[in-house]
Amino acid sequence: MILLIPGPTPIPNRVQTAMAGPLVYHRGPDFPALLTGIVEDVKRVFPTGHDVYLLSTSGTGAMEAAVVNTLSPGDSVIVARAGNFGLRWDKICEAYGIDVVIVEAEWGKAVDPDCVRAALVANPSARAVLATHSETSTGVLHDIEAIGKIVSGTDALLIVDGVSSVCAHPLPTDDWGVDVAVTASQKGLMVPPGFAIIAFGPKAGKASERSTLPKHYLDLSEYRQSLEEGRGPFTLPVTLLVGARAALDAIGEEGIDSIWERHARQASAARAATNALGLDLFAERPSNVLTSIGLPETIDGLEVMTRLREQHGVVVGGGLAHLRGRILRVSNLGYVVDEDLLAGIEAIETVLSDMGGDIEVGAGVTSARDVLKK
Amino acid sequence: MILLIPGPTPIPNRVQTAMAGPLVYHRGPDFPALLTGIVEDVKRVFPTGHDVYLLSTSGTGAMEAAVVNTLSPGDSVIVARAGNFGLRWDKICEAYGIDVVIVEAEWGKAVDPDCVRAALVANPSARAVLATHSETSTGVLHDIEAIGKIVSGTDALLIVDGVSSVCAHPLPTDDWGVDVAVTASQKGLMVPPGFAIIAFGPKAGKASERSTLPKHYLDLSEYRQSLEEGRGPFTLPVTLLVGARAALDAIGEEGIDSIWERHARQASAARAATNALGLDLFAERPSNVLTSIGLPETIDGLEVMTRLREQHGVVVGGGLAHLRGRILRVSNLGYVVDEDLLAGIEAIETVLSDMGGDIEVGAGVTSARDVLKK
Repeated sequence: MILLIPGPTPIPNRVQTAMAGPLVYHRGPDFPALLTGIVEDVKRVFPTGHDVYLLSTSGTGAMEAAVVNTLSPGDSVIVARAGNFGLRWDKICEAYGIDVVIVEAEWGKAVDPDCVRAALVANPSARAVLATHSETSTGVLHDIEAIGKIVSGTDALLIVDGVSSVCAHPLPTDDWGVDVAVTASQKGLMVPPGFAIIAFGPKAGKASERSTLPKHYLDLSEYRQSLEEGRGPFTLPVTLLVGARAALDAIGEEGIDSIWERHARQASAARAATNALGLDLFAERPSNVLTSIGLPETIDGLEVMTRLREQHGVVVGGGLAHLRGRILRVSNLGYVVDEDLLAGIEAIETVLSDMGGDIEVGAGVTSARDVLKK
Repeated sequence: MILLIPGPTPIPNRVQTAMAGPLVYHRGPDFPALLTGIVEDVKRVFPTGHDVYLLSTSGTGAMEAAVVNTLSPGDSVIVARAGNFGLRWDKICEAYGIDVVIVEAEWGKAVDPDCVRAALVANPSARAVLATHSETSTGVLHDIEAIGKIVSGTDALLIVDGVSSVCAHPLPTDDWGVDVAVTASQKGLMVPPGFAIIAFGPKAGKASERSTLPKHYLDLSEYRQSLEEGRGPFTLPVTLLVGARAALDAIGEEGIDSIWERHARQASAARAATNALGLDLFAERPSNVLTSIGLPETIDGLEVMTRLREQHGVVVGGGLAHLRGRILRVSNLGYVVDEDLLAGIEAIETVLSDMGGDIEVGAGVTSARDVLKK
């Protein structure tokens, strides 16, 4: 099975092997070095100089932690969003009685940083701007650097969902003025799902002192205190941390710069293939996490996905919400080798042609291979 | 290394092997059968006829879910506690603005159900009683059946921390009037840490309709809706679920009744050994999860634990909070074979004797073996 999905991503063998070893005891003497080593190495992949905490939650749990540790009931925030995952910020904020001002772009487009600036001017009491780095439902990359320049000139925090972007794109929190960034194990980090990571900077730390939203399991002050002793306040998923240790070793050997470059090269190849096949590149400002391919009206994306899986052993993402059946989301996130990406493109060509699409079989693979060779 | 600790417990080989297999995609076609099969089989281990949800959190996350899904700010509750883990209920409730009435027993003793009755009479508006089945910091088992008889005659909910007890003791929620019960993967279930389980009954379901505490990640209505499609609302730790599938198969083969009996037999053997060595059985109403051994004043428990680990490869729990260094907590929870328990007892005898304890080396093992033979 070839997994070309934006998480859980394929897992390198050495990560699997590490996790199959004997269980580490989370109160035992070896645990603090494991945890603090992971925390230090994870900082390099954002990169971030902020405090970093590991939570036993999915990425959404860390997004909620970002909100409940910095805000108070009745606060207002600006959510900059352009897709399904951006919607999660509204939902979390609304669940906690936060007033949400929405700055929205059409799905497939990116939110214009100038619109964020205008929203901040119109809502000077906004406590935070919440944004999505790589919007995985559409394949769009937001310009967090530009948004950060705008937000850092105000009292508002910039809180960024980097769940799918970290390891595929740099997210230098300190340079870009990102106060809180979250990611999760099963994405660029190449570990199975089961823990999330939150980078929490000094401006966020100040905000946390006045935050009154209720929290216990997600209370980062507990994590800060426990981390000083090399532990989590609650039981952490040790097996997955052992996997993370192996994954971070692999990342260290390849080098995070090379990994960013690999994601850029592979995504560029997928985009070249899409163009060569005369298909629609759905994302206006495409992410290197995944390539969204708009399908011809006559072709049912769900049927394409079934054929890809059953006839070719290739798993790609489909469209979410109103895009269901309308796009394919072909991801090269994590541990994807060029050959798997090419096999995926070849399978897509074949299936679309079989289903009556006006497709020149081979054109996509040829274009992609040319890009990958560079 | 012989792990005699109350979680993470030793993992059977078949569980390790299952987790080393290829990754299952949480949006793929095989996932719903995996998740719903686990949910159905987990119901048998409580046993419970209630709805059961899996959360990507530690046990504490599920405890918090029990609170935020049933209560509202300003509600009052009764916390029945007698140890470190019972304290967690206060902390969670207080973080959410719930008024807590505490019914406390000294560490090492169990809360008297009649005291819970008296607290309910004195606080007729209490919305819930929160209790701990097996209090792992002291080794005490609470009489949840008796507490349930009292609470079920009132409008209050009975919410039980079964994190360490499930699989070691029956916790028949429906028969005992338990409205919410929580447990976690790394305990009797014999899976590494990384997910929690919540059983949520009809009286709790009614309460959830009027609960106004804020929640998103822990909102069980989202879990209920997603489970109908065989999914979680957020990414679940699939690798650990594959492990859980194997563990539940093993539990099914041994039979949950036999597993309860095994825990009873092994804990009884550990207690017999403690008595034979002239040591103090710390728990007045002992759990079958672990045996708390009170040490002579002259012996430092931390040094005992270090020697056990370094000289004998045996890991046991130590005393928490004011019991630090004063007790050993020897657990037979999960996948512990008789030989490992005996080796642990033998190591304890040897270390205590080496440290100048008045110990008849061999007496503990002999008594334990006699009990195990029965």
